[in-house]
Amino acid sequence: MVQQQRGQETRLRLLEVAQERFTQQGYDATGVAEICRHAGVSKGAFYHHFPSKQDLFIALLDRWLDNLDEQLAALRAEAPDALAGLEHMTAAIEPVLAEASGQLPLFLEFLEQARHDPVVWEATIAPYRRYRAYFSRLIADGAEEGALRAVDPDLASAMLVSLAVGALLQSLLDPDGADWGQVVRAGVRMLTPDGD
Amino acid sequence: MVQQQRGQETRLRLLEVAQERFTQQGYDATGVAEICRHAGVSKGAFYHHFPSKQDLFIALLDRWLDNLDEQLAALRAEAPDALAGLEHMTAAIEPVLAEASGQLPLFLEFLEQARHDPVVWEATIAPYRRYRAYFSRLIADGAEEGALRAVDPDLASAMLVSLAVGALLQSLLDPDGADWGQVVRAGVRMLTPDGD
Repeated sequence: MVQQQRGQETRLRLLEVAQERFTQQGYDATGVAEICRHAGVSKGAFYHHFPSKQDLFIALLDRWLDNLDEQLAALRAEAPDALAGLEHMTAAIEPVLAEASGQLPLFLEFLEQARHDPVVWEATIAPYRRYRAYFSRLIADGAEEGALRAVDPDLASAMLVSLAVGALLQSLLDPDGADWGQVVRAGVRMLTPDGD
Repeated sequence: MVQQQRGQETRLRLLEVAQERFTQQGYDATGVAEICRHAGVSKGAFYHHFPSKQDLFIALLDRWLDNLDEQLAALRAEAPDALAGLEHMTAAIEPVLAEASGQLPLFLEFLEQARHDPVVWEATIAPYRRYRAYFSRLIADGAEEGALRAVDPDLASAMLVSLAVGALLQSLLDPDGADWGQVVRAGVRMLTPDGD
């Protein structure tokens, strides 16, 4: 039990240190040995948790997404209907943007590695596709409940996800350029019949 | 006259070669000497056209944007009203996306350099801000003409630009994931009173 807990702590420390090193100097320039040294962890322990540096990299992405998924699921479960669910999710985008702030380097590292590496590419595009499918169902539910315009759910969802991605990128690049949370919320309001 | 023409050709060749080298191996790893060698141009001629490698880098961005601006202005001039102008612009997004295809490396290079370099940062965010102002006016015109919902023009414009940026990024990453041109067009239709 204690050993298991220690294992979790080691895994977490490796993730934190790797995120810091990747952000500061890039993925390619950061070696496993360096991550181990900064984390105070043996190479054996590293490879116990992660078969490779690439696996650790993808685990970083998964950790961020798992956290986001949990928040979305909780907001949907608490909401009385699909529209309220969507509105709560977009209201929650501010902390997501705030959390992502300063993560432009890591975001760019994922895109850069995705160019070179089919495994990272798969891991990078999968969540975009998953979110598009998720919001498509939610928008279809909202239209059935009469709260949303009778739009094509797949198209409206791709629009909403693109909007969120574009707002996220601009918020990383130009945090003071606009109220990015408000921009995303306006997108959901566009889907409602009286959303102006 | 002939000399001026030759100067333009040299400038163009430097831009083409630099774009190719930056795309293949990154901005930092590409030196002025290498660009000159590949372009068959002397260093004196290089510095005649570009005070620095950074100036050439920003000229690449400006060239792409000038081209886009010309297309937008022509589409607006030909359109009978603001809504038609917006629709023609979004119909024209497919060639823009197609042209950008394969340019993910250069797009990432701009973002990466913008992180480090305040001058590149200014050059990178200025067009986002400019397009937001431009579409805000166009949307305000469309609302005045009664063709668009009475939305907040700044907010609707930020939404539209974010949508286009998110669709562009996803189209670079996952060209077959959706019909990205259609996704952007759907965003404009959302702004119309009967856009569903």
